[in-house]
Amino acid sequence: MGEPTRFGIMGCAGIARKVSRAIKLSPNATVVAVGSRNAEKARRFIKDNGLPENTQVHGSYESLLDDPDVDAVYMPLPTSLHLRWGVAAASKGKHILLEKPTALCVAELDQILQACEMNNVQFMDGTMWMHHPRTAKMNELLRQQHSDLFGQLKMMNIIASFYAKPDFLHNNIRVMPDLDSLGALGDLGWYCIRFILWAADYCLPTTAVAFPNPVKNEAGLLLSCGASLHWDNGTVATFHCSFLAHRTFEVAVVGSKGTLTLSDFVNPFDENSAWFTFASESSFKELVDGWKPSLPTNHVVSTELPQEACMISEFSRLVGAIKDGSKRPEMKWPSISRKNQIVMDAVKDSIDKESKPVEIVA
Amino acid sequence: MGEPTRFGIMGCAGIARKVSRAIKLSPNATVVAVGSRNAEKARRFIKDNGLPENTQVHGSYESLLDDPDVDAVYMPLPTSLHLRWGVAAASKGKHILLEKPTALCVAELDQILQACEMNNVQFMDGTMWMHHPRTAKMNELLRQQHSDLFGQLKMMNIIASFYAKPDFLHNNIRVMPDLDSLGALGDLGWYCIRFILWAADYCLPTTAVAFPNPVKNEAGLLLSCGASLHWDNGTVATFHCSFLAHRTFEVAVVGSKGTLTLSDFVNPFDENSAWFTFASESSFKELVDGWKPSLPTNHVVSTELPQEACMISEFSRLVGAIKDGSKRPEMKWPSISRKNQIVMDAVKDSIDKESKPVEIVA
Repeated sequence: MGEPTRFGIMGCAGIARKVSRAIKLSPNATVVAVGSRNAEKARRFIKDNGLPENTQVHGSYESLLDDPDVDAVYMPLPTSLHLRWGVAAASKGKHILLEKPTALCVAELDQILQACEMNNVQFMDGTMWMHHPRTAKMNELLRQQHSDLFGQLKMMNIIASFYAKPDFLHNNIRVMPDLDSLGALGDLGWYCIRFILWAADYCLPTTAVAFPNPVKNEAGLLLSCGASLHWDNGTVATFHCSFLAHRTFEVAVVGSKGTLTLSDFVNPFDENSAWFTFASESSFKELVDGWKPSLPTNHVVSTELPQEACMISEFSRLVGAIKDGSKRPEMKWPSISRKNQIVMDAVKDSIDKESKPVEIVA
Repeated sequence: MGEPTRFGIMGCAGIARKVSRAIKLSPNATVVAVGSRNAEKARRFIKDNGLPENTQVHGSYESLLDDPDVDAVYMPLPTSLHLRWGVAAASKGKHILLEKPTALCVAELDQILQACEMNNVQFMDGTMWMHHPRTAKMNELLRQQHSDLFGQLKMMNIIASFYAKPDFLHNNIRVMPDLDSLGALGDLGWYCIRFILWAADYCLPTTAVAFPNPVKNEAGLLLSCGASLHWDNGTVATFHCSFLAHRTFEVAVVGSKGTLTLSDFVNPFDENSAWFTFASESSFKELVDGWKPSLPTNHVVSTELPQEACMISEFSRLVGAIKDGSKRPEMKWPSISRKNQIVMDAVKDSIDKESKPVEIVA
């Protein structure tokens, strides 16, 4: 392993605390700088999160991006700022770990991705669950070694929700149209769409149809919505995302021969051990008085590093290979982000068109 | 307890085997007659299912309905025959336990229910899971003593599917338009809609929107479909039903404060012990590195009688009270069946109208 990837944290959002810890836990990454529009805030963040005393403080994002000791930035800024600062970071040659949703629309994301490509920097979005070893294990069952146990993908439903307190509903950036205009769709729907795409092996659905009458706040921002997504072969996915329902991260994916479920897909109940259930070729007993096999199998997957540290490690590994000249940026990650954004755009479009079906175009 | 309710079984469908066993298990019911268009078939059914040798054999449905020793009929006939034989049974003063779907449309069901009302006979449909004590326990958490743990109903998703073998897809009555023209919607969608109505305390949704492009067979019969259902307060339910996907009976119901899930809602994995999971007021730990409480609670509900025998017992209890003159028919059951049928009609209508939203009218 070469030198660790040196991170600059750009903005002191709540989620940056979790990611700072993940960088500390990750063997190939280190935090070298924190930037905020308010230097005092950056200083406090360094202290509160136990970062080394020599961590560089930057009182502006520009200054952070000019720091020659920073290889990569973690960017948990409000979505409406991603275009400006994503392009700026890439232009300064910084690798980018960008929080989701990646942009307000795919046209904006494309500008960021283009800047990354031109500057030979790695892009990855902050969808942490992708990096949990549980995801790799589920992948084996659905699509790789054991895909004969699952068969052809038929239907799925994903729920991502939490019950926001009044303070959140009035003051959080995720409900402010000028900062995060995608609301619950951007914050939670992003995860649902990602799971759907993951399960479909990133084959884009052809059509999105939003559920009618989504719940919006006074400013018109989405608090609760959902959609169905359709493929030409008859596969159907539905998802529900909401700031108005109990914390739920529920997945059911059904193939012709198997069923996978999990209840904490975005964030495991326990960070060191996570599970999912899988059943294959279930049938009823002769008198329909029970099942054969009698129960789905519980698959437990342990991990030494929490999923967010796995994400940091993978990102840093890719950055390291670019730094030492052995590899070009891995295009898998921007490609997945882009599909996620394309589907989200289509759902948003269908919402804006009062649930008219919207064709999804790559 | 008075005399047991004396059942005539009308038709020797596969499901009648399970219900015969349930009648034998039920302390207040007994099978006294079996009717089939083929007397030999009825005789064999009696023998194969260990019914008493003196069980009356009827070589026609008319003859069964004329048998004065029969109090009630269990009717597992193809859906297209329900109208004719349901009305005939009621007119002969027979109480009716009718398999689902109850009719091809609510107009037909209304004729059956009217005949029942005119003849003072009990009507109930064969939705067995309603009678499992697990359902009563879930009811406590969602809507009764402990409804503060669940809060207001927000969203739900239900999946009911099994992977039909080629023989089923070509020869089963459930895929023959002249016998069971509702296909997977009638056979499996019925259960999904029932669960949705149950969770919504039988408050009808206002709108049904079918998913586009349902899968049909060559005769135009539904093999796989689904819909979203909407209430004016923003509550959304989705369901998927299919003959083309692995056997799955998955439920997720989310309120403002709680989440309920189960994976075998139609038919428990084990007939004597069933469970569901329930979580209330879950939150993340401070660094979002796990949940508080750490896990949903697993509620196990044991039952001495399998759910189908609970159904027979409840039906027979109601019939007994009518026979001894102490009660009129319980209207709760036909009323629930009717709502189930109304929603199913609306979904079918939306399918036929290429996913146009259909208003649901009581």
